[in-house]
Amino acid sequence: MLELLKQAVLDANKELPKRGLVTYTWGNVSGIDRSSGLVVIKPSGVPYDELHIEHLVVVDLEGNKVEGRLNPSSDTPTHLILYKAFPNIGGAVHTHSRWATVWAQAGMDIPALGTTHADYFYGSIPCTRQMERQEIEQAYEENTGKVIVETFNNIDADDVPAVLVNSHGPFAWGKDAAEAVHNSVVLEEVAMMAYHTLTLSNIAGVTSIDQALLDKHFLRKHGKNAYYGQKQ
Amino acid sequence: MLELLKQAVLDANKELPKRGLVTYTWGNVSGIDRSSGLVVIKPSGVPYDELHIEHLVVVDLEGNKVEGRLNPSSDTPTHLILYKAFPNIGGAVHTHSRWATVWAQAGMDIPALGTTHADYFYGSIPCTRQMERQEIEQAYEENTGKVIVETFNNIDADDVPAVLVNSHGPFAWGKDAAEAVHNSVVLEEVAMMAYHTLTLSNIAGVTSIDQALLDKHFLRKHGKNAYYGQKQ
Amino acid sequence: MLELLKQAVLDANKELPKRGLVTYTWGNVSGIDRSSGLVVIKPSGVPYDELHIEHLVVVDLEGNKVEGRLNPSSDTPTHLILYKAFPNIGGAVHTHSRWATVWAQAGMDIPALGTTHADYFYGSIPCTRQMERQEIEQAYEENTGKVIVETFNNIDADDVPAVLVNSHGPFAWGKDAAEAVHNSVVLEEVAMMAYHTLTLSNIAGVTSIDQALLDKHFLRKHGKNAYYGQKQ
Amino acid sequence: MLELLKQAVLDANKELPKRGLVTYTWGNVSGIDRSSGLVVIKPSGVPYDELHIEHLVVVDLEGNKVEGRLNPSSDTPTHLILYKAFPNIGGAVHTHSRWATVWAQAGMDIPALGTTHADYFYGSIPCTRQMERQEIEQAYEENTGKVIVETFNNIDADDVPAVLVNSHGPFAWGKDAAEAVHNSVVLEEVAMMAYHTLTLSNIAGVTSIDQALLDKHFLRKHGKNAYYGQKQ
Repeated sequence: MLELLKQAVLDANKELPKRGLVTYTWGNVSGIDRSSGLVVIKPSGVPYDELHIEHLVVVDLEGNKVEGRLNPSSDTPTHLILYKAFPNIGGAVHTHSRWATVWAQAGMDIPALGTTHADYFYGSIPCTRQMERQEIEQAYEENTGKVIVETFNNIDADDVPAVLVNSHGPFAWGKDAAEAVHNSVVLEEVAMMAYHTLTLSNIAGVTSIDQALLDKHFLRKHGKNAYYGQKQ
Repeated sequence: MLELLKQAVLDANKELPKRGLVTYTWGNVSGIDRSSGLVVIKPSGVPYDELHIEHLVVVDLEGNKVEGRLNPSSDTPTHLILYKAFPNIGGAVHTHSRWATVWAQAGMDIPALGTTHADYFYGSIPCTRQMERQEIEQAYEENTGKVIVETFNNIDADDVPAVLVNSHGPFAWGKDAAEAVHNSVVLEEVAMMAYHTLTLSNIAGVTSIDQALLDKHFLRKHGKNAYYGQKQ
Repeated sequence: MLELLKQAVLDANKELPKRGLVTYTWGNVSGIDRSSGLVVIKPSGVPYDELHIEHLVVVDLEGNKVEGRLNPSSDTPTHLILYKAFPNIGGAVHTHSRWATVWAQAGMDIPALGTTHADYFYGSIPCTRQMERQEIEQAYEENTGKVIVETFNNIDADDVPAVLVNSHGPFAWGKDAAEAVHNSVVLEEVAMMAYHTLTLSNIAGVTSIDQALLDKHFLRKHGKNAYYGQKQ
Repeated sequence: MLELLKQAVLDANKELPKRGLVTYTWGNVSGIDRSSGLVVIKPSGVPYDELHIEHLVVVDLEGNKVEGRLNPSSDTPTHLILYKAFPNIGGAVHTHSRWATVWAQAGMDIPALGTTHADYFYGSIPCTRQMERQEIEQAYEENTGKVIVETFNNIDADDVPAVLVNSHGPFAWGKDAAEAVHNSVVLEEVAMMAYHTLTLSNIAGVTSIDQALLDKHFLRKHGKNAYYGQKQ
């Protein structure tokens, strides 16, 4: 069942080490079949180079295992909350990629400092608030998802397809598993450049890019009059 | 038509990922045939490893497509402005390479801090002013070219073959597409070292290199009495 | 004798250059057979790609060579002190890996700034005090071990499986040689991210992560109710 | 003639790109045959992957070409000054390797901040003074050598086998071409770690390592009672 989705989720997971986003097993990608409400996700603790399609785990949106011998990623409850809250997304990724994690550890939003950012994220990439003790001690992974959703109270998750979980690391998403990984790669580039822009500017001063420029770059790729690429 | 130029532009585009200057499709190289006034440029949104010579697009200096099935790079109008304003250049490159983009996002010129810089760039690599709202909303890519040309009002583009577009990223150029990419690689090295020189010196103080040293390094490679390399 | 242990120690040593933790011969891994009290360790000054199983040296816990033609690592006395002081460890590693060494040179503990850290280290990774002149001049490598043990006076070495030797570099350990190297890799990631978190936060302020979050991450992997991975 | 030396110099030059020390042709290695006073050096401007043994150039200590069709490296006069001033060295290297160049551009000595440094360099790696205008305009490369020698007025070049030329980049040397490149690699590691140690410590304060520790590490490898490695 869900063979095409499983292949897409497998490929997306294997893209993580190729793109330098993970050390050991520190990351997981999932994808959802919206018609059945079933989610395919990486099993917990399995190295990427030993990962085969039959290792993938299928769960429903309440977290019940529907297929698979292995345990799903321990972050599965977070993925499920994202799928329930953000109806347009088809894939989600969690990693501890270095530069995004640096921002998460600093507890800081990544401001939109240039057009690389604006090409993908329509505004700051937010960092969640710190979680409360009881949110951590009970249903931690589910509460991680809830604090992400709370963070997007006034942000459209389709326009800002990534978040930094405070003191933890990034989650990203997209229309499918491949796009979610793509957005994770971009997030890492953007986070690296933003770190160095701010520390360099600390000598000389810098501000966020102009709103018109942010609009232009985001909208020439994503708006209804988008004209980047081959799609017309 | 223009087969040799197409091959050179293809090779130069494929050099970008090999040199670590691009993520996904974030860069484009063009070359011009000055006798016909025709420009060969990468198509928009095509990955480098899927790029073949027949995908390249030929446009005239007014931006009319002369040959090719695909859309040219969305940055084509910027390239055309550069070819019209800088009569000696034969190739141009745009990337979002990390270290150069950091400087562009900080809105700072890269000062000449050492002989690596001086071997290629005869003075600071300038950052453009921020663009005005109307420049962004209308004919954005063409205006990007115009603000670059404005920046070179008092700078010889042959002596400083690169620019940082404010809040965006670098453009570089050269006598042909290969040299334009070569200059992009050097710009990235120089930008990386300048970032760390300034942040290190922020502890101890640093100044631009001596004018005589800047002259020596640039002129032993580029002046009429140049003596570096095998050409005599 | 000890063929399985030798193979494990050989593999663990060869993992060091693969993971980018060593330049030239700047690192060594050992493993102990607790039943016999014998330690297998890399010979001194032999490049990793020329290292074969017959080069490994076997010593007893007093440092007497029991088998092997070559000299053991000059850091052997430090390894032996660790095995004597920390009864649960089965492998130990010393490297000059870049980011951990930066912290050692700064003489600073690495604070627990995120869950990547908390997944492996239950609190700060401590930096030893500077050694006294007489500790350096006599039995230096043995005293290096002693100052590490002193540093863990109030820290459980099983919960914090790494240390920074002041002005020198890291040691890490684990239940066997492979886990010791794994912890060295994690230490390097954590050190890289902590450097950038602190320097970024120097602009905006940051604090250690919440104790509840530290508990949660460490204990979901290591506590008696651990639920990460496939072991249940 | 000098076939063994040529092979050693060729191998040492090809090691530069393998170790990530050079971009394009930005580096050169030479070696000297002390009995004949002849120096073998890389030709100017030839890419490393196109470099063959017959391209190497042989010059005498006055810079007269003795063998070879190509021009020697434009830095040849600097190499010759080093061979004349430092009688024990058999190889010399110049690169624009990134981290060492950062320190050269900042005009700062690299202080001995840890044992990695102390294992190879017995004290700070000095940065030369800035050169005077007339030193730059006339016999620039020869004067570069002279300012290096002047910098070593009170430093033993055998104990500190590298220098930073102000606003330019590093030179390193050793008993032969291979050791000179080895020292260049170490210099780059040391420079990278020193940069981050100082910038990290800028938050918290740091000082040079203890003299006893500097002695211990340097002397256990280099003193008359050295006991590191297999040589006894």
